[in-house]
Formats: sequence, C-alpha cells, structure tokens
Amino acid sequence: MNYPGGIKKRQNTFEKSFVDYANRGMKLEDDLNITNKYYRDIDKAIIYKKPTPIKITKVNYLSRSNVTIKEAFFDTPSTTDYNGIYKGKYIDFEAKETTSKTAFPLSNIHLHQLKHLESIEKHGGIAFIIVKFTHLNKIFLLFEKDIKLFLENTDRKSIPISYFESNGYLIKEKFNPRIDYLEILDNIGGNNEEKN
Amino acid sequence: MNYPGGIKKRQNTFEKSFVDYANRGMKLEDDLNITNKYYRDIDKAIIYKKPTPIKITKVNYLSRSNVTIKEAFFDTPSTTDYNGIYKGKYIDFEAKETTSKTAFPLSNIHLHQLKHLESIEKHGGIAFIIVKFTHLNKIFLLFEKDIKLFLENTDRKSIPISYFESNGYLIKEKFNPRIDYLEILDNIGGNNEEKN
Repeated sequence: MNYPGGIKKRQNTFEKSFVDYANRGMKLEDDLNITNKYYRDIDKAIIYKKPTPIKITKVNYLSRSNVTIKEAFFDTPSTTDYNGIYKGKYIDFEAKETTSKTAFPLSNIHLHQLKHLESIEKHGGIAFIIVKFTHLNKIFLLFEKDIKLFLENTDRKSIPISYFESNGYLIKEKFNPRIDYLEILDNIGGNNEEKN
Repeated sequence: MNYPGGIKKRQNTFEKSFVDYANRGMKLEDDLNITNKYYRDIDKAIIYKKPTPIKITKVNYLSRSNVTIKEAFFDTPSTTDYNGIYKGKYIDFEAKETTSKTAFPLSNIHLHQLKHLESIEKHGGIAFIIVKFTHLNKIFLLFEKDIKLFLENTDRKSIPISYFESNGYLIKEKFNPRIDYLEILDNIGGNNEEKN
C-alpha cells in the first residue's frame, strides 16, 4: 500500500489491534460487499455500503495531497449502511450479525436507523434488514413493515428467530453472488405483499 | 464535546490546520446539508451526504466503546457524495465548487464518479451535478445526460459556464431551503426532457 508523504506502515500493537477490531463480526459485511460488487459487475443493481462515519479531531495538514489524520473517533451513523438502486427502485438496508441462537437483540440497531427505514418505506423505497445468526449459519431478510409490526405488538427487546422464520425470508448462501438478497425481491415482485 | 476515554481536546497546530482544511470550499456542502435536513424535517425527501471515506491504518483499541483512531488518510470516494429518495425516485448527485468565472474544470470530478452517475441514470435514477461558481455566486444543476452529451462532443477539459446556462438549471439561493434543487426536478416533472 502507498501512503501519502512516504509514511511507512509500521507493524505495531495499534495496527494489530485494529485488524482484530476490524475483523470482529465483519464476515457478513465482506460477503455483502462482494455480492454488491457482483451485482454492479453484471449491471444488475448499483448498491454500495456507505463509508463508516468518522469524527476527525486532529490532522496533520502539510499540503492538499499530504494530509494525515492523527486523531479521530468512530461516529454514530445517521442512516443505514447500504443503499442504492435496483430496477429503478430505491433500496435501503442495514445488515447485522448476532451470535444468539434464539433471537436478534434490537439493541444491535439504533432507533434512528429503524426510523430511517420507516421513512424510506413511506417514501416508496424498499427497506429491510439482513440478519445473520452466525452460530446457526442462517441469514434472513426482514422487511421494514414486518419489523414495525413486531414492534407495535410487543415490548420484547429482541426479535425471536421464529419471527424471522415466519415473516422474513431465508437467504441461501451461494457461491456467486454469495448473499443473493435481490433474488428475494424478485420472487416477491419487488414488494413484500406475498410470501414465497 | 465529549471524547471517549476522557481524552481532552487540545488546541494545537494540528487541530487548527484541520479547521482550515475543513473550511476550504465547504460552503456549498454546508448549505446542501442544511437543505437536505430541511427536506427531511418537512418529510419531502430523504437525502443525505455520505460520510467521507477514510482509510484507517492505526487504532488504539482499549475496549469496544473506547477506540481511538491514531492514523488514517482521506480515501478516494467510490461514488458520489449525495443520494437518497424523492417521490419514490432514487436521487444521486455530486456537488462541487469552483473559483473559475468561466468554466468548471472536469478534473474536479473523478471519472469513476461520472461513470457512476451514468449507471444511475441507466438504472432509472435521477443523476446530476450541482456546481457553484463561487466568484459569480451562481449555482447550477446539470443532469448526467447533459454532461454525457458535452463529453461526447468535445475534448475540452472543462465545461464552460455558457453550457451550464443553456443546458443546466440555475438554482436561486433562498432563505429556506437554501439551495432548493428539488424545485428544479419538480418544475421539469421529475425528468429533464424539457427546460423551464
């Protein structure tokens, strides 16, 4: 890798820590990035993961092309991680992993992210979450309207896997694309009025 | 401001440099952020600026809630800065300022960003650029198809202001929303078949 200003990457504890941090629960994200790249390559859909929001507090500014961020923090995302366009429709979703075998803890998703998905649905977009139960190796797509329905009818702090099984859609992992979530949208005709 | 781990913000040269850096040509971005917030507040459209892509090379990871980025660099954006949904349509654009009084230098926009806008248009989205000529205090919206038309018919490395005047749309600055670019889309019926 090349760094501006000829700064050499050092193998130190900070960096190692970052690698550990970055790899924690990022498998679903990697698979979705590969899937989205595949969709773009075959020109099926234009969907990207947004960059991680960072709050920068110190930089070393030597010139326009030589800027090093010296201190920054991970910021709270305003919206969901993924959005784009498919068959002329606006697509918006959040993807999460859980190690639980029984339920998806709602604390994994910020309330303003759920509100965002609700707004998208209201404005005519297709809004959903993709949840991977890592220990069961099962990935579900759950539309926003079904999340809303769940929240309106319970005080539970997690969505049980049975709810995903009856109201969500199981996404089978394939070789390519790895997580073919657009297939779910195709099968239900671009909306979630009927189940397969 | 509060920082994780009780780290106090120091007033030093790095920080001053960052403020200078951040303020350089960010007026249009600020005005668009305020405009987009206004659109969201009145529930007219859900459009956000994406976070700035950062390549992180060193972090100090103490715990999940106490992570400080110690070294990072500004990364090349994969796509455009702004996207979202308006009247059920996918909206995608890039915004740039120029100090030139005669033309917008195409070097201000990455080639892959222009290709991205072209893909969006092809997939049924509404794609454009917003360009502010800061010394003339004029802001134009130019649809992707008109950028493409320009590029197909010339080898020029900049789009002259006359092209914006005849093929783009002047956005008048107002009190609220400051840069009412959705008004342009409304006036042309959500597409750019006809001019006002």
